[in-house]
Amino acid sequence: MSTIAIIPIPNIPLIFPGDDLPSLLLEAIDRAKVGLKSGDILVICQKIVSKAEGALVDLKTVEPSPFARQIAAMWDKDPRVVEVVLRESRRIVRMKNGVVITETKHGWVCANAGVDASNSLGDDIVILLPKDPDASARTIRTTIEARRGITIGVIITDTFGRPWRDGLVEFALGVSGFEPLLDLRGSSDLQGRELHHTVVAVADELAAAAGLVMEKGAAVPAVIIRGYRFLPAEGTAKTLIRPAEADLFR
Amino acid sequence: MSTIAIIPIPNIPLIFPGDDLPSLLLEAIDRAKVGLKSGDILVICQKIVSKAEGALVDLKTVEPSPFARQIAAMWDKDPRVVEVVLRESRRIVRMKNGVVITETKHGWVCANAGVDASNSLGDDIVILLPKDPDASARTIRTTIEARRGITIGVIITDTFGRPWRDGLVEFALGVSGFEPLLDLRGSSDLQGRELHHTVVAVADELAAAAGLVMEKGAAVPAVIIRGYRFLPAEGTAKTLIRPAEADLFR
Repeated sequence: MSTIAIIPIPNIPLIFPGDDLPSLLLEAIDRAKVGLKSGDILVICQKIVSKAEGALVDLKTVEPSPFARQIAAMWDKDPRVVEVVLRESRRIVRMKNGVVITETKHGWVCANAGVDASNSLGDDIVILLPKDPDASARTIRTTIEARRGITIGVIITDTFGRPWRDGLVEFALGVSGFEPLLDLRGSSDLQGRELHHTVVAVADELAAAAGLVMEKGAAVPAVIIRGYRFLPAEGTAKTLIRPAEADLFR
Repeated sequence: MSTIAIIPIPNIPLIFPGDDLPSLLLEAIDRAKVGLKSGDILVICQKIVSKAEGALVDLKTVEPSPFARQIAAMWDKDPRVVEVVLRESRRIVRMKNGVVITETKHGWVCANAGVDASNSLGDDIVILLPKDPDASARTIRTTIEARRGITIGVIITDTFGRPWRDGLVEFALGVSGFEPLLDLRGSSDLQGRELHHTVVAVADELAAAAGLVMEKGAAVPAVIIRGYRFLPAEGTAKTLIRPAEADLFR
């Protein structure tokens, strides 16, 4: 087991719909002279992926439902934002103290279905999560791999809260190029005793590690993780979603 | 923002009650020739801290209560282990499908109150979480700081599951030397727009990053994280516990 490096990619320009994100990422990587090598994992904040893909809603086009108006009135929120949150959700998990936790259409449980109303695109524009973060990760990965002749992993992340624990942490929403769960069951510990129940969510650990250099406002929406050994595989972040029947917190 | 390195400390010997953990860690660091510098964060797996502190229970001394026997019978568990789990807990959060999630006496929500029955000390010995992980971290930090004339941070971690998401991740249970929450509220993003609600659980992100090299069975129960800038402060992992009134999942 050798050292892992978490390498920030600075000076990525502000991203707009239609931008060629793989090219902009490679240009920033080249400018930073950090290189991109086979075995690297490229971790990208959801916000720039969504912007490039145009996963945006102009609130001026949104007609809030009566339910959205009711929730918004209770907590002095913008009913159009609440409407967008409801449209992005398939289930409300908790609604309390002005916080709305939902399960998104993808299956992620997070505040406001990941809808971001605090961004640089103007007061009436909200940013959604990418429609299919695995597909976004795959497109970025295969484009970069083809252009550079290398094999990498890609993670699309977002910042979520957690039950019981304070503070936000970066999580994996989209994965391509490796398996997000590392199954160590059946491997043995130092004494030869079989280990039980040890499946590590490495994609979330990689996302959290990237979060250490992705601080908000610091213009670091992408990070290279170098030295984490993985077996190349298609991979999908969907394996990180705990199946309903095994979920004690539904 | 510069590169962060996650440096495994290999060849730490098996730890036994009464062992001088700071000395054994420093010896392993010296053998690995990775150094330990001011500004480093030393991340240590709970298991070796508990072993050194003798936070162990001999199951032969445990008389299970009727409630423990009842739970154990339901799911074919060792009633003595269930008894220890109950003694380490102040609240049962969920009990389903043979999984018991409790709030420990420290305030952590995790499976089996963190009691580890799968270890190298023999079939009848279970390992508890350290009695006061902040104090354990502080002792290790101040001992090493005094001996080496440096300023470091220390995190004691354990591997927990999460609601809704599959796989286990390394979390911070004890912190000394820095603040585990990084409060970015009031700082502004690229466009000068104020950011809201952004408090990052950096101690958990650091723990998860360390988890990437702490794989079970690989004899890497301690890790140095180098290059993460922090303000020296006493710090306590207790700030990572969401206050009951702000917790939507109680």
